[in-house]
Amino acid sequence: MMKSFWRGSAMTMSASGKSVEDLLPPFLRHDSIAYVKDGSLFMRDRRKLPLEIADVECRTTEEAADAINAMVTQGGGPLEVALLALLLAERRGEDLAEAVSVLSASRPTNSTMRRTLAAILDDVRNGEDCGSAIQAAFDYYDSLYDSISDIGESLISDGDGILTRCFPEHTFMLSVRKAKENGKRIKVFVPETRPYLQGAKLTEPSLRAMGIECYLITDGMCAHYMAEGMIQKYMTASDLALSDRTVVNKTGTLSDAIAAKYFGIPYYAFSLSIDSGARREDIVLEERDGWGEPGYGASMLYPLFDVIPSGLVTGIVTKEGIL
Amino acid sequence: MMKSFWRGSAMTMSASGKSVEDLLPPFLRHDSIAYVKDGSLFMRDRRKLPLEIADVECRTTEEAADAINAMVTQGGGPLEVALLALLLAERRGEDLAEAVSVLSASRPTNSTMRRTLAAILDDVRNGEDCGSAIQAAFDYYDSLYDSISDIGESLISDGDGILTRCFPEHTFMLSVRKAKENGKRIKVFVPETRPYLQGAKLTEPSLRAMGIECYLITDGMCAHYMAEGMIQKYMTASDLALSDRTVVNKTGTLSDAIAAKYFGIPYYAFSLSIDSGARREDIVLEERDGWGEPGYGASMLYPLFDVIPSGLVTGIVTKEGIL
Repeated sequence: MMKSFWRGSAMTMSASGKSVEDLLPPFLRHDSIAYVKDGSLFMRDRRKLPLEIADVECRTTEEAADAINAMVTQGGGPLEVALLALLLAERRGEDLAEAVSVLSASRPTNSTMRRTLAAILDDVRNGEDCGSAIQAAFDYYDSLYDSISDIGESLISDGDGILTRCFPEHTFMLSVRKAKENGKRIKVFVPETRPYLQGAKLTEPSLRAMGIECYLITDGMCAHYMAEGMIQKYMTASDLALSDRTVVNKTGTLSDAIAAKYFGIPYYAFSLSIDSGARREDIVLEERDGWGEPGYGASMLYPLFDVIPSGLVTGIVTKEGIL
Repeated sequence: MMKSFWRGSAMTMSASGKSVEDLLPPFLRHDSIAYVKDGSLFMRDRRKLPLEIADVECRTTEEAADAINAMVTQGGGPLEVALLALLLAERRGEDLAEAVSVLSASRPTNSTMRRTLAAILDDVRNGEDCGSAIQAAFDYYDSLYDSISDIGESLISDGDGILTRCFPEHTFMLSVRKAKENGKRIKVFVPETRPYLQGAKLTEPSLRAMGIECYLITDGMCAHYMAEGMIQKYMTASDLALSDRTVVNKTGTLSDAIAAKYFGIPYYAFSLSIDSGARREDIVLEERDGWGEPGYGASMLYPLFDVIPSGLVTGIVTKEGIL
């Protein structure tokens, strides 16, 4: 019987004796991403953070998929949401293959979510209990965040100015938190990340909540602070990473990565799992129409993601080390 | 008697028989920038465009300087506003040297405004009538916009996708307008230019008003569309240009210029006048604190301008040709 790839992980404690859950900023703790109550899935609406704490209730698998697609949650959010949505689909006696298909289609670029759901489906077909397969997945990712962020922390030097992009989620947040716990003095520069402002709404408040010195800048200022000598590392999450070191991440990352190369600043992308089989031409990039005000009637383009060629990527930080 | 540098220019007609005023988009026509009424200077509030047409009344030279400093107008706006403010200062019998000093200090990076005001002061000291010296300055700049945009037009090819930044004002707008009048099919990509959104509020609506195909993008998407092969030219105004081809322009321009270099796309900056005596270390760069919401309590940085080193600049478009 083929076991899913996360078998063998356990409750995670970092070297400091604090759990991953203790070290994370509030927005990234499990209950702040999604939870189950009275048979419904409640998903924290990241579009309203940090000013308003509001949860979107999803009564069906389709509603959960629609909410993911509508960017109610993003980054690492869809993975946790999809796991809980699958749990509820099983409890309601739905066809699990159909549920996995609907959820996977909600964010085609997010291959980690797709692979995890497919692996759970395999386990269940092989006789595994659905609930325990899902719990094992949660435990696996907590342990993964912990080990990847240990490597991330080792890349950070005392005195570093670090640029990031969008909301770089668990692995980056734990890396800088651990660097701080280890006495390293760091500054993080956070581009607001238009149009959805994940940098302004999620990243900067999360860093501030962890007591890390951070500055909000606009998306066009990244090269400016590189030129001023204030940035020593560029670090982002990745929505997808290929084994040839091609990275897919939020729009704006390509621009930053080119500027980092120009100024000789290393660029590290964090990846939960490398798409070892995929090639550049296999990447499915989501496109969206417009993005609301301020458009004033303009034709607006919105490619969600950039493809960053391997020549611009210093390393991909994975649980196995730096690729 | 030293004559000011704009002598000899006349009422400007482009080759098509249309005046510069006819060719400009509505926001850039003289009366849409500033006008005098009942002894007051009225300045169009660009921060409220395009949704609201509102003018700020300035009763004194200090009020005009404060409004310029508060970004009520920007780009080529401060020059026209300062000319009218000086005219009113003279009518009120104020000390002209003091008025020039107050107005020049309102935007230290804007050396075109400073030099023009200083030249008028010289003329008046040499016995010139203040009103006619100021009218001659207006005529000179209309003629300058016309000749610079003839050169700008010649750089544009049929089928070009052109990226710009912020609100690139008269010279760029006339260049693309003339390209369109000459039957060239072009597309312009306009970054919204946070935090003040001049791209979304001024540039895109102006291009649309001229019937030019244009797309609003966020500040982080410029490299994306270069990578997609959709951009053949990068063209901006400049707040300041040195004779060694160093350019100072709105924050974001450095990032774009680095990406343009990476993709082999030429970068042209328009300049009304080169600061031939200045060196890199003489440049006075304005800095601002924060920039309002969405900051959610964050520490925000806002360097208004980028310095773009000459190695990233293909050419500076001046009235004498391409530097």
